[in-house]
Amino acid sequence: MLVNGKSGDLISIRDRGLLYGDGVFRTMLARNGHALHSLLHLQKLQQDCTKLGITCPALSRLADELKTLLVQHPEGIIKLIVTRGLATRGYAPPPDTEPTHIWDVTPLPSYPDEWASEGVIVRVCDIRLSEQPRLAGVKHLNRLENVLAAAEWSDTNIAEGLLLNAQGHVIEGTRSNLFVLRGGVLYTPVLSRCGVAGVQRDRVLSYATSHKMAVKICDLTLADVLSADEVFLVNSVIGVWPVRTLQTKRWGDFTFTHRLQAQMAQKDGV
Amino acid sequence: MLVNGKSGDLISIRDRGLLYGDGVFRTMLARNGHALHSLLHLQKLQQDCTKLGITCPALSRLADELKTLLVQHPEGIIKLIVTRGLATRGYAPPPDTEPTHIWDVTPLPSYPDEWASEGVIVRVCDIRLSEQPRLAGVKHLNRLENVLAAAEWSDTNIAEGLLLNAQGHVIEGTRSNLFVLRGGVLYTPVLSRCGVAGVQRDRVLSYATSHKMAVKICDLTLADVLSADEVFLVNSVIGVWPVRTLQTKRWGDFTFTHRLQAQMAQKDGV
Repeated sequence: MLVNGKSGDLISIRDRGLLYGDGVFRTMLARNGHALHSLLHLQKLQQDCTKLGITCPALSRLADELKTLLVQHPEGIIKLIVTRGLATRGYAPPPDTEPTHIWDVTPLPSYPDEWASEGVIVRVCDIRLSEQPRLAGVKHLNRLENVLAAAEWSDTNIAEGLLLNAQGHVIEGTRSNLFVLRGGVLYTPVLSRCGVAGVQRDRVLSYATSHKMAVKICDLTLADVLSADEVFLVNSVIGVWPVRTLQTKRWGDFTFTHRLQAQMAQKDGV
Repeated sequence: MLVNGKSGDLISIRDRGLLYGDGVFRTMLARNGHALHSLLHLQKLQQDCTKLGITCPALSRLADELKTLLVQHPEGIIKLIVTRGLATRGYAPPPDTEPTHIWDVTPLPSYPDEWASEGVIVRVCDIRLSEQPRLAGVKHLNRLENVLAAAEWSDTNIAEGLLLNAQGHVIEGTRSNLFVLRGGVLYTPVLSRCGVAGVQRDRVLSYATSHKMAVKICDLTLADVLSADEVFLVNSVIGVWPVRTLQTKRWGDFTFTHRLQAQMAQKDGV
């Protein structure tokens, strides 16, 4: 655990990350002393900081700290948080605040093996995502909607919940991005008004484009998802999970999703 | 400064208040060793905790801690934060987490005297508030919209910015609630889809009702505000500020607002 480059696991109660959720974060998977796709994560972190007007620490510094951290923690979930820093007074960002940056490592979660091979059970959340174009796509610290969504179910057989907006468009999972394959075309929801655009979403889109697949980033209804040939979820911890069950629908053919899993895993070193 | 009843100004980097903004807060004014309307604030805090499913510390305990704090800090802005507590894994609230509660005191701000007497200059913010009925009214820690709104202006002559929703309804100020007087009727925006319902808003509504005034809690457009006889802003630190200037509109008659200021101040001991 590092806070502003020094060993520690505490921050000030006056940090704007706590007071306002005024910050951004990334979650990476460490295996064999290597943080997968760390450069993509750091670049995304920097982009998200820019969108909020937060001064991002130099990526070279973050990369150095990560390297040191991986020596001690070669396996685990690595979380990196950047907040706008200490508060002075009120909501307005102080003009010359030093950002706070925090590294934390937690143990790898143990999901059932068959979730990746045979697919997961997914539900539809009751809560609807609000629309804020200024924050859409950004992995910021205002995550109460995700908390309320995740609080909706306790059945551990259900791997993920889908989040829709007020218009009934499917946006994402509570902690994952969603893809749908239909008639050879790969679809994923547009995230210009809500949702988080994850690194793995970008990687799948790059893969599809480089393989000359037809890709559509657009509004998707629940009916669009239910009538798909294959549906899968991605994030940096789970990788790629095929969806087996959603409401009364069952899928059994994961041909594309399994091929993608293999390809994404191969490219993990990149 | 107290963290969970003990002297300190640090919290864990694994507190859900930081990770997700998973908590609520109150801001009170302390004068002469007395925190104004502290009971109303604590009750509202408890209600907000209930809405998020957070276990609120016992109000008697909070009241005792506040009493101790006021001995050391008889004057200032007192902030009380309650978060859901330490994270285990993921967004889902752990079933038996101890909440974290934090007291902080900062110096009283010094606003120009004439802001209360002659009114303030107010602007309209560009950012539009998103709509989330599950969080509306709650003073929670997801305040990035307020941060982005407050970042829109730097002219210190502008005292506050008004926040509208996507439909063009005026909801509140970045850190205050809004009232409008028109034809003897007192209007304030409905806060069922966005906005924070502050303690001073409740107090003004109670005052108006007990004085048999006609009160309407409804949607208000910017045109409604601009055509009002008087407009004023309230919060627990500023009290009541008449609005003097909004866009090209100028107000000069603050008869009702000044009477209300006097009444609200009289009732401050309650």
